[in-house]
Amino acid sequence: MTKVGYIGLGIMGSAMAANLLKKGFDLSVWNRTPERAGPLMKRGAVWVDRPADLASCVDVLCLNVTDTPDVESVLFGPGGVAEGARSGLVVLDHSTISPRATRGFAERLARNQVTLLDAPVTGGDVGAREGTLSIMVGGDAGAYESVLPVLKAVGRRITHVGPSGQGQLAKACNQILCALNLLGVCEAMALARKGGLNLSTLLDCTTAGAGGSWALEHLGPRIAAGDMEPGFMIDLITKDLAIVCEEGRLEELPLLGTRLVAELFEAAGRMGHGRAGTQALSRVIEALGRFRFQSDSGEGAGA
Amino acid sequence: MTKVGYIGLGIMGSAMAANLLKKGFDLSVWNRTPERAGPLMKRGAVWVDRPADLASCVDVLCLNVTDTPDVESVLFGPGGVAEGARSGLVVLDHSTISPRATRGFAERLARNQVTLLDAPVTGGDVGAREGTLSIMVGGDAGAYESVLPVLKAVGRRITHVGPSGQGQLAKACNQILCALNLLGVCEAMALARKGGLNLSTLLDCTTAGAGGSWALEHLGPRIAAGDMEPGFMIDLITKDLAIVCEEGRLEELPLLGTRLVAELFEAAGRMGHGRAGTQALSRVIEALGRFRFQSDSGEGAGA
Repeated sequence: MTKVGYIGLGIMGSAMAANLLKKGFDLSVWNRTPERAGPLMKRGAVWVDRPADLASCVDVLCLNVTDTPDVESVLFGPGGVAEGARSGLVVLDHSTISPRATRGFAERLARNQVTLLDAPVTGGDVGAREGTLSIMVGGDAGAYESVLPVLKAVGRRITHVGPSGQGQLAKACNQILCALNLLGVCEAMALARKGGLNLSTLLDCTTAGAGGSWALEHLGPRIAAGDMEPGFMIDLITKDLAIVCEEGRLEELPLLGTRLVAELFEAAGRMGHGRAGTQALSRVIEALGRFRFQSDSGEGAGA
Repeated sequence: MTKVGYIGLGIMGSAMAANLLKKGFDLSVWNRTPERAGPLMKRGAVWVDRPADLASCVDVLCLNVTDTPDVESVLFGPGGVAEGARSGLVVLDHSTISPRATRGFAERLARNQVTLLDAPVTGGDVGAREGTLSIMVGGDAGAYESVLPVLKAVGRRITHVGPSGQGQLAKACNQILCALNLLGVCEAMALARKGGLNLSTLLDCTTAGAGGSWALEHLGPRIAAGDMEPGFMIDLITKDLAIVCEEGRLEELPLLGTRLVAELFEAAGRMGHGRAGTQALSRVIEALGRFRFQSDSGEGAGA
């Protein structure tokens, strides 16, 4: 059986690593905060002291950290993957980071006969637990084929989208869609609320039509109910949109809508909603419009 | 059988009036440009010379004109509906106009014992032809019940959303959703295109996920293919968003995203795309980013 390593045991990584164990993979792990490896070790995962040591003893090494500098540090920092990687290793980076930094990392790793595949995911913590994530993979097609069993253990909709960095680019595009759809939901619901239109009625009569979106269907009701529990956190979409905006700048592409909504997500973070779900964008819209989505009586969707 | 009048025989009105004839309604019509009534008259509709005369001989009078001033003129201008309306007439306004102007019109008509229901539609020319429109109705609940057979002859998803003007408000909210979802589609596809990601691949791997929307599913492929045929025209969404922005201003609600995309639709109109489909918003994004969605070889979705 393929030996798999896992680095980055946050909410997403822990759930995905657990699915690898469930599917019978021989799993070794490393995490910056070792305590987080406990539950996986109880289920058979082996702790390894440094990313370099992990890279020397596995066939496929999964990364799931936060941002571009985190990936760089794990790969090329002291005791990092590049120090110990055996020839032929495939690194599967599930983090959401810069597309062009990814291409640079892939080139550097290739010098050690290591293949980097960018494989960012969507589908949230629920998708990670249930193994139903969507995964957009960029990089060498042969390496992609070789790690498909690993990908299929953690995801359902898996697409090889192009060469190195293109998985990250597809994810960046996906985040633009999520962000602007959600801004539409917030502004539409705000106008409804200000005008006294029942929010449930609005959702009922728009969700199935030409204004429909995943965001409207899944986050609209949460906004109406004042439920700010994170599926995906404000801090993380803010990070992702910073990557998107930087990519747009380097491509000389004005992304007016994306930059606007990125600013609004940042404002939500400054208001203290960084660890709330992305639907807390609604709190910024409320502040701008001096209103609340929930009536004083607490009836979220009330007229 | 209920006698129905129809005013406003544009693409939408003609198709909806034809469905009323099909369902056996006794139909009389008036239109600013009389020639457009020809096809309906061949199928049994009766021409009447003035809105006032139409209002004197029908039970339900449908309006389907363009903007708030057009509705006002047909209702209250010389020879207008108010001059001839018989007591008990229900006016069903399918136009997309100002919610608060609608409330004013309803109050003025009520003095003549005429009930105005605002009943804007979504679903485009296809929905109008096939009788599958969504209709959001505002106004008196009893009058709504009384005209349901007429509504069911032209639409499928019919919702009474609240008192007078709320149908228009729901439609305004719907247009916010459509506009911002489409901006997201354009910016996401632009970043993909600039970065060399295949547009079909992007659509394949995002449409079913958290970035998904009606706009992505239906307009994304048209943008990739360079197909700017109107389902719904730039000039009309520009008009609708002007209503939305004015409503936001009067409600003291900043609609930052909506105003941005409204400006971009206006720019599309000035570039000569006013009668193209809303997906011609992509032409503005191309101009901003100095690129084309279609490659020189004409392969729309090519890498």
